[in-house]
Amino acid sequence: MENLSFSEYSLIYNAFSFTFATMMAATLFFWLSLKSVAPSFRPAMVVTGLVTFIASYHYLQIMLSFDSAYDVVNQTVTATGKTFNVAYRYVDWLLTVPLLLVELILVMKLARGETIKKATTLGLAAALMIILGYPGEVAGDLGTRQFWWYLSMVPFLYIVYTLVVGLKTSISAQPDAAKGLVKTACWVVILSWSFYPIVYLLPNLGVVGAFTAVEIGYSIADIAAKAGFGVLIYMIARAKSDAEGYKAV
Amino acid sequence: MENLSFSEYSLIYNAFSFTFATMMAATLFFWLSLKSVAPSFRPAMVVTGLVTFIASYHYLQIMLSFDSAYDVVNQTVTATGKTFNVAYRYVDWLLTVPLLLVELILVMKLARGETIKKATTLGLAAALMIILGYPGEVAGDLGTRQFWWYLSMVPFLYIVYTLVVGLKTSISAQPDAAKGLVKTACWVVILSWSFYPIVYLLPNLGVVGAFTAVEIGYSIADIAAKAGFGVLIYMIARAKSDAEGYKAV
Repeated sequence: MENLSFSEYSLIYNAFSFTFATMMAATLFFWLSLKSVAPSFRPAMVVTGLVTFIASYHYLQIMLSFDSAYDVVNQTVTATGKTFNVAYRYVDWLLTVPLLLVELILVMKLARGETIKKATTLGLAAALMIILGYPGEVAGDLGTRQFWWYLSMVPFLYIVYTLVVGLKTSISAQPDAAKGLVKTACWVVILSWSFYPIVYLLPNLGVVGAFTAVEIGYSIADIAAKAGFGVLIYMIARAKSDAEGYKAV
Repeated sequence: MENLSFSEYSLIYNAFSFTFATMMAATLFFWLSLKSVAPSFRPAMVVTGLVTFIASYHYLQIMLSFDSAYDVVNQTVTATGKTFNVAYRYVDWLLTVPLLLVELILVMKLARGETIKKATTLGLAAALMIILGYPGEVAGDLGTRQFWWYLSMVPFLYIVYTLVVGLKTSISAQPDAAKGLVKTACWVVILSWSFYPIVYLLPNLGVVGAFTAVEIGYSIADIAAKAGFGVLIYMIARAKSDAEGYKAV
């Protein structure tokens, strides 16, 4: 296990706690706001809350696992020998990353067949991207890490291509009030998700304190990609509900 | 207790955690989506959520029981002597497997008498199937395991027969929008449930690493048979609500 200074330990621990609180709060916001969007956008809001709910569970587990991996006495940090379970992140992403794309597809309100087709292909590509990243994350050597990074980038680039090119007609069919927001949402996916492969490569780039940087980096990326992106989905659902003349009762 | 390598231990532990998160998320999805189906389909959705809720509880217990059965220090896994309680699965199935058939019967919306009759006979057959499987699962020797497997297959085949032949008239009476989905749901039951007797027999087939394969196999089967099947029940309820002209408010 990585040797950590007291300040590194505290920074990481507090980042986990911050992310847990943010994800729980975001979940409650999305579900408590269900009735403020038209019925047809509620499935999108339900899924948006599921993503942050699943992330809350995993950040709680990550925080507890990190806590058990170190003893801190008089500001001296010693590894206990217990495992810091990195897999929680991957298990989380395997569930949440496909669901994030499903949120986006649902809020666009395409025809039923198109929704199922797009949600399935994008969801599978996202799951594949996560599965291909995992062997590199747990590998001891940097060459293996690099190898799986390349493989994982293939489905990632497919997703980017679909969001930029494949959804062009669907985006231009959005009501004017939401068109800009939907475009922004696609770009938030692309930009916030680009953060992950960069963080993943930090150890390969020989960054000093890469362990701390990876944990903090993933936490920031998760907040942007899940809670931040979710707020955008909520704004799209609100704008489209208004455009349809929906009045909450 | 089985000797496990660190990677086997991690794989099993993470599969339990993944299944717990999936079941909790599925439960919330089904219950938060109650109002998006017509009132007559809400009992089916409530039961669908009950199944994944009960499974969440048991996967949490299974995860904690597994955690207490092993000590992991510096990636070395040692059995503590505490019991890994296999019975949680059977207690779970005793509750959830009859309820899964009840979901299917409820979403088909048969006449009241027919619903009660079908739900009772299928539910009892499912409970019997689980009860007959248990003595073999806890038996030390493979002969006893095989013996109870045969007995348990009798109610299983009765259920398959009922789903394929007994429900034929009820399925053809479904609205066109849902007929295909209901047929798919029957086949998902048959195929996902077939997975269990195969996993059960792995130790008899002399599979290397059977302990790990059994735990992972049951987890995958539970996700498909409960959360996956539940999504299908939701889709049927949505399609039939639409066909009835239901509009959520």
